Formats: sequence, structure tokens, C-alpha cells
Amino acid sequence: MKKYALGLDFGTNSCRSLIVDLTEGRELASFVSDYSSGQKGILLDSKDPNVARQNPKDYHQSLVESIHEAAALAKKEDPEFSPENIIGIGVDTTGSSPMPVDDKGTPLGLHLEFKNNLNAMVWLWKDHSSHAEAAQITERAQEIRPQYLAKVGGTYSSEWFWSKILHCMNTDIEVFKAAHSFVEFCDYIPALLAGDTRPDKIIRSVCAAGHKAMYSEEWGGLPDKEFLSSLDSDLGKLRDRLYEKAVPSNRLAGTLSREWAEKLGLQPGIAVAVGAFDAHMGAVGAGVKEGTLVKILGTSTCDIMVSPKHKGYEDIPGVCGIVDGSVLPDHYGIEAGQSAVGDIFLWFVNHLAPDSYGKTPDEKFKNLEVEASKQKPGEHGLLALDWNHGNRTILVDVRLSGLLIGQTLHTQAHEIYRALIEGTAFGALTIINRLEEYGVKVEEIVNCGGLAVKNPFLMKIYADITGRPMKVSRSDQTCALGAAIFGAVAAGQEKSGFSTVEDAQKALTGIKETYEPDPESHKAYTELFRLYSQLHDSFGNPTWSGNLHNVMKDLISLRERQRKPE
Amino acid sequence: MKKYALGLDFGTNSCRSLIVDLTEGRELASFVSDYSSGQKGILLDSKDPNVARQNPKDYHQSLVESIHEAAALAKKEDPEFSPENIIGIGVDTTGSSPMPVDDKGTPLGLHLEFKNNLNAMVWLWKDHSSHAEAAQITERAQEIRPQYLAKVGGTYSSEWFWSKILHCMNTDIEVFKAAHSFVEFCDYIPALLAGDTRPDKIIRSVCAAGHKAMYSEEWGGLPDKEFLSSLDSDLGKLRDRLYEKAVPSNRLAGTLSREWAEKLGLQPGIAVAVGAFDAHMGAVGAGVKEGTLVKILGTSTCDIMVSPKHKGYEDIPGVCGIVDGSVLPDHYGIEAGQSAVGDIFLWFVNHLAPDSYGKTPDEKFKNLEVEASKQKPGEHGLLALDWNHGNRTILVDVRLSGLLIGQTLHTQAHEIYRALIEGTAFGALTIINRLEEYGVKVEEIVNCGGLAVKNPFLMKIYADITGRPMKVSRSDQTCALGAAIFGAVAAGQEKSGFSTVEDAQKALTGIKETYEPDPESHKAYTELFRLYSQLHDSFGNPTWSGNLHNVMKDLISLRERQRKPE
Repeated sequence: MKKYALGLDFGTNSCRSLIVDLTEGRELASFVSDYSSGQKGILLDSKDPNVARQNPKDYHQSLVESIHEAAALAKKEDPEFSPENIIGIGVDTTGSSPMPVDDKGTPLGLHLEFKNNLNAMVWLWKDHSSHAEAAQITERAQEIRPQYLAKVGGTYSSEWFWSKILHCMNTDIEVFKAAHSFVEFCDYIPALLAGDTRPDKIIRSVCAAGHKAMYSEEWGGLPDKEFLSSLDSDLGKLRDRLYEKAVPSNRLAGTLSREWAEKLGLQPGIAVAVGAFDAHMGAVGAGVKEGTLVKILGTSTCDIMVSPKHKGYEDIPGVCGIVDGSVLPDHYGIEAGQSAVGDIFLWFVNHLAPDSYGKTPDEKFKNLEVEASKQKPGEHGLLALDWNHGNRTILVDVRLSGLLIGQTLHTQAHEIYRALIEGTAFGALTIINRLEEYGVKVEEIVNCGGLAVKNPFLMKIYADITGRPMKVSRSDQTCALGAAIFGAVAAGQEKSGFSTVEDAQKALTGIKETYEPDPESHKAYTELFRLYSQLHDSFGNPTWSGNLHNVMKDLISLRERQRKPE
Repeated sequence: MKKYALGLDFGTNSCRSLIVDLTEGRELASFVSDYSSGQKGILLDSKDPNVARQNPKDYHQSLVESIHEAAALAKKEDPEFSPENIIGIGVDTTGSSPMPVDDKGTPLGLHLEFKNNLNAMVWLWKDHSSHAEAAQITERAQEIRPQYLAKVGGTYSSEWFWSKILHCMNTDIEVFKAAHSFVEFCDYIPALLAGDTRPDKIIRSVCAAGHKAMYSEEWGGLPDKEFLSSLDSDLGKLRDRLYEKAVPSNRLAGTLSREWAEKLGLQPGIAVAVGAFDAHMGAVGAGVKEGTLVKILGTSTCDIMVSPKHKGYEDIPGVCGIVDGSVLPDHYGIEAGQSAVGDIFLWFVNHLAPDSYGKTPDEKFKNLEVEASKQKPGEHGLLALDWNHGNRTILVDVRLSGLLIGQTLHTQAHEIYRALIEGTAFGALTIINRLEEYGVKVEEIVNCGGLAVKNPFLMKIYADITGRPMKVSRSDQTCALGAAIFGAVAAGQEKSGFSTVEDAQKALTGIKETYEPDPESHKAYTELFRLYSQLHDSFGNPTWSGNLHNVMKDLISLRERQRKPE
């Protein structure tokens, strides 16, 4: 009898269910169910562009729908398939996306009294409203617990767990008082499936805890009570209602409850793995290993690497986190990222690309690319900073913004589009350089996520700018595949046939395509990267001092050289 | 019998004829005739965005058509009017717009053999292809003739006479060799009407000579032969085929030739005044006097002031020129300006404003303004440098470019539109501050030109940003009115009734409307201007040194404060 695993990938706008055939090592069927609330699943506040929340009921609906539909598709694809043969479930979600819950673990956003209160909802990863609290936490930690910061890149982010809780406390005491505890999205779903969401019973993900909540076994788990109380006495008290221990995702969060088994049409009692963030499981589904940088390219970007524990590691300034077991068990997981990538292109197409490029966003993207691809590097004379949603790595600063320089009276939309893509690639190179500066050698880059699959033009520019081959993961749904791998491994070798995550990766992951860098383009881009770095440092680094008089002139010179007929 | 004067205003895209009733002191009729060649009269080079040329035959055609049509309209308006009662013609044109001519003064662009050669055409004021030559001239003058630079703001521009001639020599020796001499557009038209375009016979404008060709009586006219020969020996030789003397526009260039009188339906022998640049005559038509800054707001901007000769003056770094008699006789004329203003808005609307704002450029402008006007200063969080076409004052540097900072994932087109308008206003304030720093007190600001008349939204922002009332000239066609004033004055008091330009101004000019600044908006804009100045200096001043880490953060802080509900 064949064996299958189920990967559940909760993204920013939708939930994907993927059914993997473990016996034949292939992805059998998947289905994506969009969240129904707000703007593509995101609850916005017209008064504050920093706010981004989600309604937990969307998760419940999409979960059920996507599994049923995926199972139906799997059945068509493989007559041997039956939902009864699914042996384990893995779950990844966005994060840090904490939600306030009551003492039973029910999200406050599901309570009638809070159903219209954005602060009772899930505080989505990209919510930036807590920047003042992030600065306060960073400052306090610098004073009394510098070790906490060393593992999260030196600066605590507004996107993370404690900033959001503290901001909730500061701005909506009613919600904070009603909250018995706060639970990460990636911990909530496995607990829900296992039938017990009580905060003290939930098995917590070391990925979420370590990368976003300053958890480490080095100091006995979460930040200590003294530190939290120094931020606010109520925060200190909250610590007792959080958790002591967090574990990797090859461990069981529980087994599928009878209630949820019925709702989903699956067997009760099958393995439900501990959850983790989408990027981390995506890296596993893309085949992450020592020396491999996995880039998950979507609306934002996550860059994931692992480092074997025996090698030790160094703290890397500006890199979000280095956490034991957050990606692969028995390895340090290293996470970096860019706050907005695809989101910047979407913004540009939705708000600034004229209709001469097409009527729909898809048409506009296509024609912008057709025109932009006719140009040589630097021919447009433009340079963009990719900070429209702040900078996650290596500056860890949300109070930054986009910048475009070099426009003339002739600059066209497709030229700006190209400059925006290049800006994100320069941001990516800045991260690679930082990792290598601190001894984490990047020997291979594997890309996955929507942009890697759908945008060869972008992949080519990334290869040319970094001067490195850009590989694309064989799977188009690495996050869900990574989740399925953990679902299989958590079920145990006897059931899944895999003794380790690495075993499962060998059977299930691979490379589909490689984009090679063009040396001449790389040379021109090296000049542009020097200018990018100058802008990066002058606007992003408080201690930089210098002059920018060369920047516009160098861009014009390069433009003139690149425009010359050959 | 009533008396009339004719003002001819040759702009960038068209020629306007205005018939003024001198007896009743009113503008009787005008007609605009578009140039027929190229893109709205401008000949472009797809290989080089710096190139902007014009075909002299367009001038001939538009001149004839606009006068005939204006006369027909005047007849309808005023039965007493007859073309025979026009007593004088004044002419203004764009500049510095030199053209190569043969020994009879015929433009080479009218020769069959050169009819497809852009270098044989008129080198339009906004042609920036001669930037290397401008740098060379600046450098040489700094070495051996620093006095030449002191009167043109310290830096010789690529937009000016000698740069263009030198670039023609460097890039198209055939045209340069065929050229007996070079003549400014504003000198060519009066000579044409007076029936003698031979270069040694043309009466030259001190406005063009002084502001753009480093002419001054202090050193005996044009730059000396030694200086020109040090740039190129052929340039030294050319000096003998140029001119010795230049005069103000209250003087006669000649009288209307029989041939042209017939073509135009006017009386032969009437006064043709010496020409001048559009902005300078526009300032006269707007009522320029001591303490009054006249801003001519169009695709680019000219800022004109006068200073009485008895007060003496100081050289003002970065201000294009201070020339005896270039605006009003017996006054120093002071010229500053911005390389692109309306052109930046046109660029944005044509290339980046999506069709959700409207189908036509006019609709887009209207709706962008409707949305932008709902915001408070700084609420968009954006800041723009107005350098898409370089910076004329106070940096005198064409190798600069546009810059936009502060964009998020929510930034909309109308917000950028507002930021671009604000950017030009900050540029305007920078000029005012520089003038006052050097003792030229700005007591009143009178605006004219297309943007002043058609764009109250822009005028309001200019008032709020400068903190000064923005007055708008009563006349919508101040350049043509100024030209008509000079036509009348050149005809003599007996014929015109005016003994001086000032007399004619009193009878013919005035204020239509005043926009008052709002103190609260001005306060917010003062914060933004500080940031503008920081960007201005960091990218524009080679000796600036500092840090820009505050810029994005300060923009975000101001945005947050301005968005708060009141």
C-alpha cells in the first residue's frame, strides 16, 4: 500500500494543501484556497499604512477547503490514493504572526465582541505598526541583555513577537487584558489539528521562538522575567502564560483529533508535526544543506542557510537569526531576508504603470518585461533602493523607504520596473556579502517561490548582479513540500520510510533549471552595486559620513557608455 | 487715430503674435501658430536624449501665420484697428538658441545640403549635448579669465552659446566650416524683419550676449581672442566674424523692410526693436521693477529681477547672469531659473500616471490635482529633487538627475505628482534664498507663464512653501506684451506716447490675483525644505560632507504627524 504525506502551507493570501506520494517520491496534487477577508486576506487600516492583520476564521475555512480539494485532485491523478493512506501532516505558516488567545487557546478575533477589532486579529508578519516598541526593546536589550540581540542580528524588529505584543498593550489595553496568552500562527494550526489549543499544552516551534521571540536554550528559553518586566510589568507577568520549551519540526505536535479527522476526511491519530515558518520549511523543500543558500522569492524574500553544529558559528550583525534546529534538526538555521520584493513590483504595476503597457496587471507585467529586457545594465541611468517596506537585512530598520534616482524627462515605466528589480537584486547581494564576511560560505544558491518560477527575467538579472548561477528548485511549492517532509518524518521511519529529514530531501527535492551570469553584464552591475552601496550606507547607516556628489554623475556616465552603438 | 504695437513671442513650441492697443492700454488680439517640424517643433535624436534642435523654416512660417491671424482677430475686436496703425514691433525668443549661418546670414538649416543635419539647425536652449564643452570652458575661464565667470554664476552652462558652438566644432566639423558665423535666435528675427541678416550688420541683443556669451563692456565685449583660441584656434578666428557691441531692446534693430511689410500686411519703415529672450521681455510685461521677482513658469522657469545701476551689485554664485540693460535699460538685469518645471509634470503624466486618473493628459492632470489637493503638506511622506533636466540655478550642473524618496508600498500617483510640484517649489525657494543672501531683496513675487495662469493648486503650494504671497500678472501673455512694449518704445515717444519702458509698463501691466501663504502649511514645509536642502547639497555640492540617515526617518515622522486625525 502506498504512503502519502500532507503539507499545509499558510501563506500571506491563501492556504495551500499538497499531497506527496512518499512511495514514488512525487508531488501528487495540490490546491490553493484564498483567504476571504480584507484585501486578499489582509485586513488594512486606512489611517495607518503600517497595519496588516488577518482573520483567524479565514485559516479554518481555507484549511478545510484546500485539503478536500487536494484530496479530490489526488484521487484523479492516482487511483491508488486514498486519504486514509496519508500518514502525517506538516504545517508551515507566515511569521512572526502572533495572535491573542483566551485561556482555551481560542483566538480573540473569533470572539463576537472582538470581531471588528483589528488588534484582536492575527498580527501579520508584515505589520509594521510596532516600530517604536521594537526600538524600545532593542535599546533595553542593548543595556541589560546584549546576548539576546546577538542572535537576532543586533536589532529587534517591529515585525516580531514581542514588539507586536507590547504595541497591543500600549494601544489597546482591552484586547491585551482579554488575552490569556499569545500564540504564533505556526503553533496554532498544529495544535488546532491535534485537538488542544490550550496555551500551556501547545508544542511550540523553535523556529518561531528562536528567530522572533529571542528564545534560546543558552538562557533557558524565552527572555527572562526581569527583562520583560523592565519593558512593562504586565509583559513580565505574561511570560508565565507563554511557554518554557520549543522544539524542531521533526517532532510531533500531536496526533490528528477525531473532530478534525472527520472535518478533513483523514484518519484520526496520524502524525501532526510541529509547525515552522514557511521560509524555513520552504528551504527544506528546496533541498537546503550546508553551503546552500535557499532564497524564497515572493512578495517578500527569505534567505535561509544551515550550519552544522560541530562547526560552531559567529553572530552575524543584521542577520535575523541563528537558531538551533530551526531549519534542519541538529543544524543551526540562519535566516535573513528582504521586507518587500514582489510587493514592490506589484505596487509599481498597480499604481504607476500606465495602461499603454496593458489593461490588466498581468499584461502590464508582461509588456514592462518585454521592453525592459531590451536594455543593457545601466542603460536606463536609474538606481533604486528596495526599501519601500523597510529593510529587514542587513539594516533591520522599518523606518526606511523607497528611493529612485536618475530619472530624466525621458525615463519610461519599463526602465523604472527594471531598476526596481535590480534594486532587489542589489539588496540580495548585500545579504550574501554579509554572510560571507562572517564566514558562512555561499557555495550554491537555490531559488524557489513565485518569482523564481514565473520570472526568468528577474532570475537572469539576479545571476548577472550577483555573478553567481541562480538555480531554481524543482518543486514549485517548496514550502508545502517541506511541510509534507516534516509530516512524513514526524510519523516515524516505520511509517514513512525516512529516518531523517535529509533522507526525505534526497528522495523528494531537486533542481529544475539554472541561470548562468553573463560576465559583461556582471561588470556593469558591479559599478552600479558600488553606487547602490553608497546610497545604502548613506541613508541606512547612522555612522556613515561622506559625499554623494558622484552618484548622479556616475549613473549618467554609465548610461552614456551603455547606450553607445556597439 | 489709435496706435498699436505688435509683440512677437517665439517660444519653444510656437510663435505668438500680440497686438496691443497703446491708446487704450489693452491687449487687443493674439494668435498662436505652432511650429510644424519634429515633436511639437523640437527635433530630437533618439540616440541622445540631450539633443534638442529646431528648424528655422518653422519660425518663418509661424511668424507670417500668427501675424495675419492676429490682425484679423484685432479687426473683429476693434473696428478702428488697421495693420497700418501698428507703429512698432518687438521680438522675444527662447535662448540661448544659436544657429550657424552663411555669410549672408541665412541659417545653414535652410540650405538644401544641410536640411537633414541636426547640427545645422537651431541649437535650442534646452539642448544639453555640450556638457563636456561647458566644463572645458568653465575650467579654462577659472584658470585665466575668472572675471568672465563671475557674471554668469561661476559656471558656464551647456545650454549656452559658446558650449554649443564648441560642441558643433568638435562633433560636426563640416557644419562648423560651412558656418560663416553664429547668430542667436533673438537677433536673427529682428534682422530678418529689417531686411538685412548679414552677421556684421545685425544689431545684437545685450540680453543674449551678456547672459549667455560672456559679453560685457567691462572687458570690451565678447571674450577676448586669446581666451577663445586657448579653447580652439578656430574659435578664436570665429570671434572676428561675430560682433563687437550689444545693446538693450529699447533700441532699434532697424525698420521693417518692404519685402517683409508686404508679406505681413504691415507698413514698411516701422520700428523693429532689438530682440531679447522671452523671459526678460516677459518680466517687463509682468511689471518687473526694483524689488520685484518675476517668475516665468512654463516647461522650464526663468526668474528675473532688476537692480538700479546706482546701487551697484555683487556677483551671485550660481545665478546665471547680471547684465547691464538686459531687462530694463539703465538697470542691471538678474537672471536665474530652473531647467525643468512644467516639463517634469508632463513627463510624469505622460509616462507614469495610470489611466485610472483619466484617459487624456488633461483629465489626468485634473484628477491628480483633485486627489493631491486633499492632502496636507508631508502627508505623502515623499520628497523629490527637481533635477530631471539638471539644475540651472544655483548649481549650474546638467549632469544631475531626478530623485524621489519616501515611497512605500501604498504610495499613489497623485502623491508623487504633489511631491514633484513641491520639489520645484523648493527649487524656487533655493533661488530666492540665494538672491537675498547676496543682498538682492525680494519684496514681491509676480508670476506669469502657463503654470501661473492655469494651475492655482501649484501657485498655492508655491505660496505655502516660500511663505510669501504669489501674485499673478494680469496679462496671460507677458512675453508678447513685453515685446510689444519694446516695439512701442523703440518707435519713439512721438509715435507711441511713451518716453520710457517704465512709462509703458505703468499703462500696460498689472496684477490679476494673489495667493496668500497658509502659516501652518508653511511650518510643515519648512521641515521638508530642510530635508530638501540636505539632499540638494549632498547630491549637488562636491564639497558637502555629512550623513543622510535622518532623511527617510524625518519624512516618515512628518507623514505620521500630518496623517493624524485633527
